[in-house]
Amino acid sequence: MRIFKSAEEMQHWSLEQRISGQTIGLVPTMGYLHNGHLSLLNLARSECDIVVVSIFVNPTQFGFGEDFGKYPRDEEGDSSMCNEYGVDALFIPDADEMYASDASVYVEENSLSNGLCGVLRPGHFTGVCTVVAKLFNIVLPHKSIFGQKDYQQAVVIQRMIRDLNFPVELKVAPIVREQDGVALSSRNVYLSEDERERAHTISVSLEMVHEKFFAGEVDAKVLKELIVENLQEASLDIDYVEIVDGALLTPVESVDMGDVVLIAAYCGKTRLIDNCIF
Amino acid sequence: MRIFKSAEEMQHWSLEQRISGQTIGLVPTMGYLHNGHLSLLNLARSECDIVVVSIFVNPTQFGFGEDFGKYPRDEEGDSSMCNEYGVDALFIPDADEMYASDASVYVEENSLSNGLCGVLRPGHFTGVCTVVAKLFNIVLPHKSIFGQKDYQQAVVIQRMIRDLNFPVELKVAPIVREQDGVALSSRNVYLSEDERERAHTISVSLEMVHEKFFAGEVDAKVLKELIVENLQEASLDIDYVEIVDGALLTPVESVDMGDVVLIAAYCGKTRLIDNCIF
Repeated sequence: MRIFKSAEEMQHWSLEQRISGQTIGLVPTMGYLHNGHLSLLNLARSECDIVVVSIFVNPTQFGFGEDFGKYPRDEEGDSSMCNEYGVDALFIPDADEMYASDASVYVEENSLSNGLCGVLRPGHFTGVCTVVAKLFNIVLPHKSIFGQKDYQQAVVIQRMIRDLNFPVELKVAPIVREQDGVALSSRNVYLSEDERERAHTISVSLEMVHEKFFAGEVDAKVLKELIVENLQEASLDIDYVEIVDGALLTPVESVDMGDVVLIAAYCGKTRLIDNCIF
Repeated sequence: MRIFKSAEEMQHWSLEQRISGQTIGLVPTMGYLHNGHLSLLNLARSECDIVVVSIFVNPTQFGFGEDFGKYPRDEEGDSSMCNEYGVDALFIPDADEMYASDASVYVEENSLSNGLCGVLRPGHFTGVCTVVAKLFNIVLPHKSIFGQKDYQQAVVIQRMIRDLNFPVELKVAPIVREQDGVALSSRNVYLSEDERERAHTISVSLEMVHEKFFAGEVDAKVLKELIVENLQEASLDIDYVEIVDGALLTPVESVDMGDVVLIAAYCGKTRLIDNCIF
């Protein structure tokens, strides 16, 4: 496995792969890899000749007071996991390599980013779009794999690809869950045993409304209220519970196939997100 | 010469050229081509295997009340000129092809764009950065050629390339002038005979301060005042006269080699810009 810390060397290597006719699949991550990430790697492997993983805890997508400083990191573990999984190249730059001290260019999405996570996290999606645009230009992938867990992120990136004409195909891999249903997340490591149990309510609520929907309940208000009650019972502090159009992220009143129910809630100090496509 | 109106077909063709090992030079233009543009084509030809010209009068870089509607256009003339000059591909999309009705992603530069032309033309450089990012992703050039006449634009695009890691090398071609010194511009067609004569003062002033500098005058204030007097005598309405650091565009007090003197002035209703590197 090749390991690149320099953007220029990464880009140079990718250009060489492209000229030799290889297709490149990029899995952008913030590291602390878990089975959710591995499912992204597997998808990249099945779609492309070459798999590149990037690991970069991107400071510009964290807001003031968020967990940038304590975000879990394990470069060595990540690196050997990637190696074992047959990743071809690992791009693992430091912040100075990614951002000049006088960096002044940003990619902004100003429609899909405004609701949901964008409300409590202003600037978050500008940070995401900018770093993903940079990663696309550095790694030059044919396809890039994102996880469905960050549903809004995937939709925003899809919009960026469309509006800026990136020659990249976005693939979204399904959410990977623990046996009890909890969505895998690097942030789960923050949870105490009690919190971990209460966090379970999020996936349970999603499963419940999913079942209700297929039993005939299409009133978004009713379905959302069921979730809110459940989360409150488990003493989770709700950021939002929304049911939206899967492409436009606009709230729906009557739920249809392809709509998405999204939850963001604090379990103690840990912000968790999860979603389910009807 | 290939002519593409579709971004997807242009991109597909460019990807094919790249795989076959050809280097691509892009000359982005707003059409109504003149000898200034031809010098960009010549530079592209000398630097790359394949020359692509884009012609797109980009609505998003024109402000309210500016000359978007009446900006001179001559698709047929431009096309045959490109053909004669051995251009390999012409990308000439319409506005609907470039911007979805719900486009929501923009590239913003928020430092170098703020002064000079950015003051009177808020949003102009966001329009420029966004469309150039799109053109880079559609045409996938190895090198892209810009004219020195739009000096601030070239510096802003260079910053965008750096900050978003575009795998593109920017080349800046010198200003091409009429015999009397007036910088070539598609907008010169707006000028009446009398205005054309008065416009001459701009390049004359630049030449004058250039000579004064090499005769030992390095006080930016003195040099700027000389220009202002000249322009006012010719009844030009000054937008700005500035002497700035060539890379950072920050005003200088004592002029040094590599600094740039820039002028923007209205001649009648026509806004003209010109500059000179010390």
